[in-house]
Amino acid sequence: MAAAAAARLLRGVAVGLGAAAAAGGRRALGSAPPGVAAGRGVRRAALAAAGALGGLGMGLWRWQQAAMAVSEEEGEDELWQRFMAPPVSGLRELRRRRRELRSRMELLIMETQAEVCRALAALDPGAAFAVDTWERKEGGGGISCVLQDGEVFEKAGVNVSVVFGLLSEEAARQMRSRGKSLKAKDGKLPFCAMGVSSVIHPKNPHVPTMHFNYRYFEIEEADGTKQWWFGGGTDLTPTYLNEEDAIHFHKTLKEACDKHDLKLYPKYKKWCDDYFYIKHRGERRGIGGIFFDDVDSPSKEEVFQFVKSCAKAVVPCYIPIVKRHCHDSFTPEEKLWQQLRRGRYVEFNLVYDRGTKFGLLTPGSRIESILMSLPLTARWEYMHTPPESSKEAEILEVLRNPKDWVH
Amino acid sequence: MAAAAAARLLRGVAVGLGAAAAAGGRRALGSAPPGVAAGRGVRRAALAAAGALGGLGMGLWRWQQAAMAVSEEEGEDELWQRFMAPPVSGLRELRRRRRELRSRMELLIMETQAEVCRALAALDPGAAFAVDTWERKEGGGGISCVLQDGEVFEKAGVNVSVVFGLLSEEAARQMRSRGKSLKAKDGKLPFCAMGVSSVIHPKNPHVPTMHFNYRYFEIEEADGTKQWWFGGGTDLTPTYLNEEDAIHFHKTLKEACDKHDLKLYPKYKKWCDDYFYIKHRGERRGIGGIFFDDVDSPSKEEVFQFVKSCAKAVVPCYIPIVKRHCHDSFTPEEKLWQQLRRGRYVEFNLVYDRGTKFGLLTPGSRIESILMSLPLTARWEYMHTPPESSKEAEILEVLRNPKDWVH
Repeated sequence: MAAAAAARLLRGVAVGLGAAAAAGGRRALGSAPPGVAAGRGVRRAALAAAGALGGLGMGLWRWQQAAMAVSEEEGEDELWQRFMAPPVSGLRELRRRRRELRSRMELLIMETQAEVCRALAALDPGAAFAVDTWERKEGGGGISCVLQDGEVFEKAGVNVSVVFGLLSEEAARQMRSRGKSLKAKDGKLPFCAMGVSSVIHPKNPHVPTMHFNYRYFEIEEADGTKQWWFGGGTDLTPTYLNEEDAIHFHKTLKEACDKHDLKLYPKYKKWCDDYFYIKHRGERRGIGGIFFDDVDSPSKEEVFQFVKSCAKAVVPCYIPIVKRHCHDSFTPEEKLWQQLRRGRYVEFNLVYDRGTKFGLLTPGSRIESILMSLPLTARWEYMHTPPESSKEAEILEVLRNPKDWVH
Repeated sequence: MAAAAAARLLRGVAVGLGAAAAAGGRRALGSAPPGVAAGRGVRRAALAAAGALGGLGMGLWRWQQAAMAVSEEEGEDELWQRFMAPPVSGLRELRRRRRELRSRMELLIMETQAEVCRALAALDPGAAFAVDTWERKEGGGGISCVLQDGEVFEKAGVNVSVVFGLLSEEAARQMRSRGKSLKAKDGKLPFCAMGVSSVIHPKNPHVPTMHFNYRYFEIEEADGTKQWWFGGGTDLTPTYLNEEDAIHFHKTLKEACDKHDLKLYPKYKKWCDDYFYIKHRGERRGIGGIFFDDVDSPSKEEVFQFVKSCAKAVVPCYIPIVKRHCHDSFTPEEKLWQQLRRGRYVEFNLVYDRGTKFGLLTPGSRIESILMSLPLTARWEYMHTPPESSKEAEILEVLRNPKDWVH
């Protein structure tokens, strides 16, 4: 069972929100990375230091000490100190194998996590990210950053996980059934899976929910050959349709894709509409974006550069929409509709999302990281149907029949 | 896929809350069965009549006319008129084959639905059940009764479904893999599945949620031999532990079981604790009750009598608890904890419950009947842990380590 689950992970299922099995999470409260609004940043760092000293694990304070020790030697302090916590693989190790793709990917997911957390924190100055670092007994670990019940965000989670170890024979068999031929040594295959994953649920029903996830997998065969692939995507789930927002979101993603290949956006836009489908409702979860999995061509470097462009597009595709609407007024009825749509979000995540399902089925998973994708609150009404020609019916129409937003 | 799903249904998965595929639901509002508090009953019947006349389908009014027509002839008006809607198999048909077990079971599930709805409506006089009757294209249909946003109940659903048709070869193969050898004629096996299923979510956090489901399956082999089995259970999900309630609930169920065989309660109590297990949380959904599946011995009559005793125990095991606590005062913190527990309820139902999963995967299912088991509202907080020795920690302890309530 665990082997089959591991194989599914490697078959391209999202590392998701900490789908990796984990043991012994460590907690440090107060999280804004250094550089966010000076006065406040200092206070948070102090809080984090107190947490670390209080025995809650390696907080920002100890992390900064460690980072500075390395960075003084390396002269790269700015980069290191921007992260939300120390990278899972350790600073020295990443430095040592800095030319390897898995090191560059780990740096990218760490940077993306910090960038997104910084951008969100700047919009919700009264709230702070809780930063939890956790270890996986079998190898690797992760960093979960969660902002909950803020002024602007109901729940915002940005998670990094980097896990590695050995795949069993059973898992290898599952791999083969996928069409990738893999030769194991002594029945075991070394693997590595890493990713950044995030779900942002804002409070205001006029600000859409956003999700993104970028991940990388590596598996080593008996002869030393490495199979590798990337997966990921960014998608938007509005409560009400705002065409201008939808166009901005898709256009920004399209620009990121177009830099690499004009065929990518149309292909991954469709994949996104197909993947985030709540079959029993006949609706998509949201208005889409891009989604891809199992991508291993044209070359590792080219796919990495593409993934990097996508990761860098997260802030520009989403943050302007939050800024535009986070102070919009709304009615109790609009809030109610948001809550019903949150219910659908829960249905998708618990019933269909492969990353979540995989995570829940993996013994020893860090459940809190996986389920931080769920909204703070949700609602289900029996036989709720919005009136024809209402704003609620308008978004339903788009969820039932996805639109082309950029042509 | 549909065949495999049908086979799973027959392998003992709950008919659940309308897991049967359905098409063309019909709606009739205002639902209290005749006999509930006279004055109010009349108003509701009038409402139902208006619904029926307004083209919303066969409401209570038309149903009463039909029932009276038959009952005058049969002299059984009292029994018939107590139901929430006309039975799926029709009055004449049930009358014609009244000695067959499937007819007696259909009457039992109809009676149970009406009994429970009446008992709930009496406790929540300001609210009314919506009664929807729906048909399944391939054979059969159902009656869904839902009371939403009342004074006492947040959401109370009581559903009956009776579905029949033919099983494919593929479904038959699935049956065989379960160990039951089945011989199909022309590759098809006639089957029948029926059940009553209910989830009651009260508003007050001191009133527990209750679920029950009783179901019967029949499958006919080529030589006319009939395979049959029963399944079901009743279980309680409190937000806060009240030992007196837990003892009353389990004792009432034990008494129902003990009338038939002293071994049943301990066996089905354990089965219940094992089934309603949220594996990724390491918690049971609630404090249990009884659960059984695939029961086909000692004899059809004896199992039916046992199931009847269980169904008749629903009102006495639950209603006294509701009465005792529905006017208890509660704090906002207690309401919050209820909402978090509602989140766990959603997790169990969407991730693990076989009846729900089967229903969602079956093309053409009546989704609203299946998902009426979900609470009106739910909440997920990242890393929520109640303080040690709190009332919240007390119930968690019992959910993690089920107790023996009656010895």
